[in-house]
Amino acid sequence: MPHINRDGVNVYYESLGEGAPALVFLHPWSTNRYIWAGQLPIFARNHQCILVDHRGHGQSDKPADGYGIDEMAADVVAILDDAGIDRAVLVGNSIGGMTALQMSLDAPDRVIANLILSSGTNIGADTPPEVQEAMQKDWRAVFSGLLDAAVSPKSKQDKPEILDFMEGCFRTESNFTEGVFWASVADPMGVFNWNISDRLKDISQPTMIIAGEDDGATTPEQNQFLADNIPNAKIKMYKDVGHFCQLEQPSNFNADLEAFLTSVA
Amino acid sequence: MPHINRDGVNVYYESLGEGAPALVFLHPWSTNRYIWAGQLPIFARNHQCILVDHRGHGQSDKPADGYGIDEMAADVVAILDDAGIDRAVLVGNSIGGMTALQMSLDAPDRVIANLILSSGTNIGADTPPEVQEAMQKDWRAVFSGLLDAAVSPKSKQDKPEILDFMEGCFRTESNFTEGVFWASVADPMGVFNWNISDRLKDISQPTMIIAGEDDGATTPEQNQFLADNIPNAKIKMYKDVGHFCQLEQPSNFNADLEAFLTSVA
Repeated sequence: MPHINRDGVNVYYESLGEGAPALVFLHPWSTNRYIWAGQLPIFARNHQCILVDHRGHGQSDKPADGYGIDEMAADVVAILDDAGIDRAVLVGNSIGGMTALQMSLDAPDRVIANLILSSGTNIGADTPPEVQEAMQKDWRAVFSGLLDAAVSPKSKQDKPEILDFMEGCFRTESNFTEGVFWASVADPMGVFNWNISDRLKDISQPTMIIAGEDDGATTPEQNQFLADNIPNAKIKMYKDVGHFCQLEQPSNFNADLEAFLTSVA
Repeated sequence: MPHINRDGVNVYYESLGEGAPALVFLHPWSTNRYIWAGQLPIFARNHQCILVDHRGHGQSDKPADGYGIDEMAADVVAILDDAGIDRAVLVGNSIGGMTALQMSLDAPDRVIANLILSSGTNIGADTPPEVQEAMQKDWRAVFSGLLDAAVSPKSKQDKPEILDFMEGCFRTESNFTEGVFWASVADPMGVFNWNISDRLKDISQPTMIIAGEDDGATTPEQNQFLADNIPNAKIKMYKDVGHFCQLEQPSNFNADLEAFLTSVA
């Protein structure tokens, strides 16, 4: 599997399929690129598909720090360079979406368009102090609770394997570690502190936001805020879906992505 | 991603998680290791999980020939050597199951137990001549029909993404090629010709067979034949499931695999 190295950190990616525009799939915090398994062969029929393991996740290195969203965005730029891809459509879920938006600002010429799946900015501002305190005592229990709130009640009933997948990802030491968790929490540009509220107006790429009404991780309001402030954005809000539409309603998500690709072609 | 090289052929695999027994996941013909995405993080919590792209598939090389099931089994032995794994539990679907059974005969000391998901032996004997003729004319159309018959009616209605996944895999040139298809069909030890009917009695490892009542690719009878002839085998037949229980009923499949691991521990 190819990888890039930035400042000594190896970040791994995988490529399948051929055809422009290339698609780059960026996974949520604590998971890995396998969350996109249900998209990979479908979109690889007509597009080069790049799946990334963010730094701190999956096969990629897990340094002591450096978990700013800006670092992850720079990793993706380096991956495009390494893969010989000039411009790509970014498909990012949660911190993957943050990474896509950051890259749209930092390397606008490399981004054709963004499909942002359940994301937000400055999301730590909405975290109650008691949750932050509880996290200090038992981060795994609190994080399990967060994941539980991130999957819709309907999905939990119909597809219990989704929460099992999430639990497995963050509790597998070789996939994600306590060190990565705390370094990300502490980073001024990390998942909770990253705040581009004032810069959303500068994102010029066509951007589609897909969100779930039952998402307790990045709320409908947080997703709506992105849509309201990115000039060229539209939003689709799913009923009975939480934070992971690609797993909770894969067939609908795939149809939306296909339609979005057609609209930006 | 690590790989082995046998006789000039690179075969890629991925490892996640730690803990014995190691599990090796072997995918069906024309797909790739991403079919096990719904198992990977769940079992990686407590086990080293190895996902293989068989030769001719995914990231692995696609030589002009050499698609016997015995070659694939030898690849897996080389992968265990490369990964420093002495013995493993094999989890194989379709040709992945064939590969596991062949390896149980060829390298019995390396196999703790087998979970065979929807497989068979000598399955070409049940292919009508008119199907073989039609295949010569339009292999993709006939293969699409085979995949359609491999997913249960209920799964097709509830989860249309499964058939999309299968179609995407075999129609993505960088994942699987027409050359691999025909070389596999022609190989005397390939998917359709491979026949260990007389040797099933020599497989001594605990073997669990999981099959679907609605499987038109490897029929309930073909799976029952394995269970009837492998001495230490049991079988579980699923209602409303076709050839891909790990996708059609992932939560139940994962529970079965977990229980099987406990039983052979």
